Amino acid sequence: MDNQQLILYAVPLAGMLALLFAVYKASWVTRQDAGTEEMAVIAEHIADGAVAFLQREYKILILFVISVAILLGFANSGRPDSSPMIAASFIIGATCSGLAGFFGMKVATMANVRTTNAARTGLAPALTVAFSGGLVMGLSVVGLGVLGLSGLFLFYQSQFTEINQVINVISGFSLGASSIALFARVGGGIYTKAADVGADLAGKVYEGIPEDDPRNPATIADNVGDNVGDVAGMGADLFESYVGSIIGTMVLGAAFVPVFTEMGISPIAGVILPLVLAAVGILVSIAGSFFVRVKEGGNPQSGLNMGEFGASFIMAALSYVIITGMLPSSWTADGTVYSSLNIFYSVITGLVAGVLIGLITEYYCSTENKPVENIAYQSVTGAATNIIAGLGTGMMSTGLPIIVLSAAIILAHYFSGLYGIAIAAFGMLSVTGIQLAVDAYGPISDNAGGIAEMAALPEEVRERTDKLDAVGNTTAAIGKGFAIGSAALTALALFAAFRQQAGIETIDISEPVIMAGLLLGAMLPFVFSALAMGAVGRAARDMITEVGRQFNEIPGLREGTAPAQFAHCVDISTKAALREMILPGLLGVLVPVVVGFTSKDMLGGLLAGVTSSGVLLAIFQSNAGGAWDNAKKRIESGIEFDGVLYGKGTEAHKAAVVGDTVGDPFKDTSGPSLNILMKLIAVVALVIAPLL
Amino acid sequence: MDNQQLILYAVPLAGMLALLFAVYKASWVTRQDAGTEEMAVIAEHIADGAVAFLQREYKILILFVISVAILLGFANSGRPDSSPMIAASFIIGATCSGLAGFFGMKVATMANVRTTNAARTGLAPALTVAFSGGLVMGLSVVGLGVLGLSGLFLFYQSQFTEINQVINVISGFSLGASSIALFARVGGGIYTKAADVGADLAGKVYEGIPEDDPRNPATIADNVGDNVGDVAGMGADLFESYVGSIIGTMVLGAAFVPVFTEMGISPIAGVILPLVLAAVGILVSIAGSFFVRVKEGGNPQSGLNMGEFGASFIMAALSYVIITGMLPSSWTADGTVYSSLNIFYSVITGLVAGVLIGLITEYYCSTENKPVENIAYQSVTGAATNIIAGLGTGMMSTGLPIIVLSAAIILAHYFSGLYGIAIAAFGMLSVTGIQLAVDAYGPISDNAGGIAEMAALPEEVRERTDKLDAVGNTTAAIGKGFAIGSAALTALALFAAFRQQAGIETIDISEPVIMAGLLLGAMLPFVFSALAMGAVGRAARDMITEVGRQFNEIPGLREGTAPAQFAHCVDISTKAALREMILPGLLGVLVPVVVGFTSKDMLGGLLAGVTSSGVLLAIFQSNAGGAWDNAKKRIESGIEFDGVLYGKGTEAHKAAVVGDTVGDPFKDTSGPSLNILMKLIAVVALVIAPLL
Repeated sequence: MDNQQLILYAVPLAGMLALLFAVYKASWVTRQDAGTEEMAVIAEHIADGAVAFLQREYKILILFVISVAILLGFANSGRPDSSPMIAASFIIGATCSGLAGFFGMKVATMANVRTTNAARTGLAPALTVAFSGGLVMGLSVVGLGVLGLSGLFLFYQSQFTEINQVINVISGFSLGASSIALFARVGGGIYTKAADVGADLAGKVYEGIPEDDPRNPATIADNVGDNVGDVAGMGADLFESYVGSIIGTMVLGAAFVPVFTEMGISPIAGVILPLVLAAVGILVSIAGSFFVRVKEGGNPQSGLNMGEFGASFIMAALSYVIITGMLPSSWTADGTVYSSLNIFYSVITGLVAGVLIGLITEYYCSTENKPVENIAYQSVTGAATNIIAGLGTGMMSTGLPIIVLSAAIILAHYFSGLYGIAIAAFGMLSVTGIQLAVDAYGPISDNAGGIAEMAALPEEVRERTDKLDAVGNTTAAIGKGFAIGSAALTALALFAAFRQQAGIETIDISEPVIMAGLLLGAMLPFVFSALAMGAVGRAARDMITEVGRQFNEIPGLREGTAPAQFAHCVDISTKAALREMILPGLLGVLVPVVVGFTSKDMLGGLLAGVTSSGVLLAIFQSNAGGAWDNAKKRIESGIEFDGVLYGKGTEAHKAAVVGDTVGDPFKDTSGPSLNILMKLIAVVALVIAPLL
Repeated sequence: MDNQQLILYAVPLAGMLALLFAVYKASWVTRQDAGTEEMAVIAEHIADGAVAFLQREYKILILFVISVAILLGFANSGRPDSSPMIAASFIIGATCSGLAGFFGMKVATMANVRTTNAARTGLAPALTVAFSGGLVMGLSVVGLGVLGLSGLFLFYQSQFTEINQVINVISGFSLGASSIALFARVGGGIYTKAADVGADLAGKVYEGIPEDDPRNPATIADNVGDNVGDVAGMGADLFESYVGSIIGTMVLGAAFVPVFTEMGISPIAGVILPLVLAAVGILVSIAGSFFVRVKEGGNPQSGLNMGEFGASFIMAALSYVIITGMLPSSWTADGTVYSSLNIFYSVITGLVAGVLIGLITEYYCSTENKPVENIAYQSVTGAATNIIAGLGTGMMSTGLPIIVLSAAIILAHYFSGLYGIAIAAFGMLSVTGIQLAVDAYGPISDNAGGIAEMAALPEEVRERTDKLDAVGNTTAAIGKGFAIGSAALTALALFAAFRQQAGIETIDISEPVIMAGLLLGAMLPFVFSALAMGAVGRAARDMITEVGRQFNEIPGLREGTAPAQFAHCVDISTKAALREMILPGLLGVLVPVVVGFTSKDMLGGLLAGVTSSGVLLAIFQSNAGGAWDNAKKRIESGIEFDGVLYGKGTEAHKAAVVGDTVGDPFKDTSGPSLNILMKLIAVVALVIAPLL
């Protein structure tokens, strides 16, 4: 047994450490005071609704997981290059994804109200609670990911002699993670936006119904939605990105095995490199979390920056040590010369590209800059010009990120081939533990503010939570850049892996069958987005009708003397989300299978189409949504046009609210799901490749 | 000299016949009565504005044409496979495109007011005038296209011995047509929507300004816009589609020359086949035009159907005779077995696909069907849900057309290889003469209605023109299906031709450089759309400010006692359109050149990306725009929701107007330009291919 095999045994320990630390943080959060009885009651309603939704969602997904597992088991039995055990990988991947989402969300619902309560005393304690809640999510995701993958790898290593077989079988883990993530993102996204849009618009249809008011029966559903969509959905999403990028690198690292064996070094060095980096990333994330603190009156931004950028910087330095330590200084495989230094450069390429995409995202979406200001000004002439400006901004904002991404693809490949592209994607995600903590901290602070409003706490509490929420913007934008960049690179790496596994020599795009596949693939993200947006529209309509019914039928509700029937609204969102997530979810799983068994060349074209169109629509939708949101906020702080001042309550503001509402399903339902869709389709292709 | 060479000499005669018939029809239209003096004055303002715009536009384009011609001449001098004469082809192509647009629009502006006047006496004479106006446009396009291409072909045949050289040099014609078309479509589209949106919204910003009223100073500009955008823009657009699909087929037909020479039949049979089909298509179109008539009180739809479908049917039958007559019953080239019968099947495949795409388009956009009804219902809850529903409908509507298109690509290729794809595209456009007449008839009737309103003619006149306008819908939808389908197939054929000419073996999409090209290509239509929409937004804003200024500064304008300064508004639209068309137009020409000289592999990826993303965004935008437009009309005829009736003037209607306004630049500016963009980029690639 060589040194590297010994290191590999240490990897699951890092996963366990992450989970232990998450449990420790979770119990700390639970021990904090939940505030007044009213706050506790509200929080309980929200937590109950959220848990109930996840339980019902998981019940449906269990059927899906079992069916797919059976199919996978049968399809892979009796094959020398695979094994029915792939079904076990699939089930474990799906379960880990579900657990990460559930555990993270459970703690987030507790952190929400405790952040509100802490904000009654000051900013610093509120930050600590909110961030701790986010950290539980972050560490659950990386802990389960690393533990699951390294545990399975060690186990399969003992079962199979061929590394390719080990990797084929373990890819089921990624399939499980991706498919659950797609359902969770879509279901959660529909839930949260149906409640949000429905609650906002009920006042438009029926006279005298207050919007954004505790009397509105949809408010609890709205808050539940924030937890199941923004927190649990995001957790499942990042879990699949993290796992997908590790597996993508492992598959391509298998190509080095014969060379390394010949050179007398550990054959699996290229395969286990991402696992080792992930394990070290966990340690760095935990260390970074200690830097996130703020003095009373200080700027919470610097604490978050310190934690996240500090961790990224340290991780980049450690990557150098690890990569040059684990890999030989240079070797040749398949006619290409590789070097450990160049692989490190690939990682840095990925990191730089992710940061740039994040900064560009922030430019297009931030309240301070031209694009958002332009949308605000275009609101003066009404909703139509606001919408045209927002759509235009979203489309324009695809330009620079795609140029950066294309350059990153070419550079990472220049440095170290396809393996370079895969590891560049993982490079962006190596400190997911702390990144996700910062991302999840945003919705926790936001929900804390919602609870403060519902419990009618003093203005200053809401101000503090708003301040916490606002400072996460830059870090969240960079997180988004990493999400988009890594998704595209991972999809590409999986695409290359698929081509290898399917034994396709070239995927010549000027061949008509492949061009047809390209067109079909490019169409999928459009139809997928349409399904997601249509679902939000339909569910919001049901919500509006229900809110209207309650105001008409419950005496005293309008006056605030009788309570609303929150549970009915929660039920509408739950049912709609569960019903409507099925079709788009199945689309992602079934289309590549149907196309693949028709023609594997066409499947190659399909993958290219889904990736290109998916990345573009994802950037377009999430940036348009973000820009509309902030244009509304920009007007709320007052803009001047032709000598007239427009602010909250003016026609310009109403027009901006229309844009914000249109942007909701864009940025929170369809947009983020596309990142998962393109990887899921690639993973499905990879898993079925040996069968084609 | 063989028989086919003799036939070729007859082709330009058909082109001349089309032009003579167009002149005859134009002089007939001119001789009709233009109605009251008020009507004549209004019509003169509109015609003057339209001609002035085209003149200024052409002045700018002359500079562009001369510069590109010089570059083309230098780049192709001293090359055995090409010749500086390509610059002459380019100039002639650009000139023919400009002439077709100018002549067609000139007659359309005369036909508008004469249709109005004819509608004062009845439906039948109004139909005859409107259709005759459209026919002039249709025949100008096909006449100039066939005359130009066949004339150049005969001339170059006498200059060069190698068929490949002839074809390289003649491809400049297509480049000229495509680049002028892009500028004309974008410029015209910006002009018309800036005026339209600006006129509509001025009332929202400044109190007491009537929308849609002759006192509104932007009304003349709005009407000018309909002529320069919907008529001249459409003419240039169809000219480039027609020419592009003929040239695409000619290039691929050159591959048969050695085989045919060996077989002892006319070597250029495959090259000149599309020219011969086009010539016969002209005769069929002229014949078909005699069937377009309606009895008073009858349905104009049946007359149009008779003309267009009759012509298509006869053309299909004649295609069989021509193809089996000109080509041998079977032959083998590059290892593929071809047969004349299978080439005929490819044509039919294209025709059927075009009709299907048209019918699907109509399903998604027609007032009668679910999708539009759903948007109408979603308007009850406000502009936001209307927009979400419209965007969703547009995205969903990409599904079936792409499936049809993919099937058509595979089938046409199955029957007769890449040549089959090219000729399938041309099959859809063979009766462009009458198709375009029916398409252009729509805006002429629409403008006739506008003039009736401005001249305060009796209600029944407007009713008649509305009836004329409405019945063109199905035929227009099918025309759109042909436009989209043929654009995609032509782009594909040009793509294949580029690969041949550039000497690229395969364009392997899993290669990182090509993948980067694919992403960049897929991004272009997004950025291009953003530029077009942004231009409309900015110009509309200038228009709004100007309308407000006039109402404030001109005493008596509000009361209708003083005339508005129409010319100022015409000037704003003109300047904005000319200024804003430059950047998107240059993007289409320069990007493929820059990318191509960086890496020709990347250019291959770029072409695939532009085609896939361009087709999808074009379908999405034009269908969303069409559906929003009709959802507004659907509400105007009254819808019931939750027991309440919503009609014109209700909040639901206002919400639907927002959707309609957002849809305007979608369906009339950016959407239709994308069809041109993707072909232009492919033609540029083809022209520079030998230089790479």
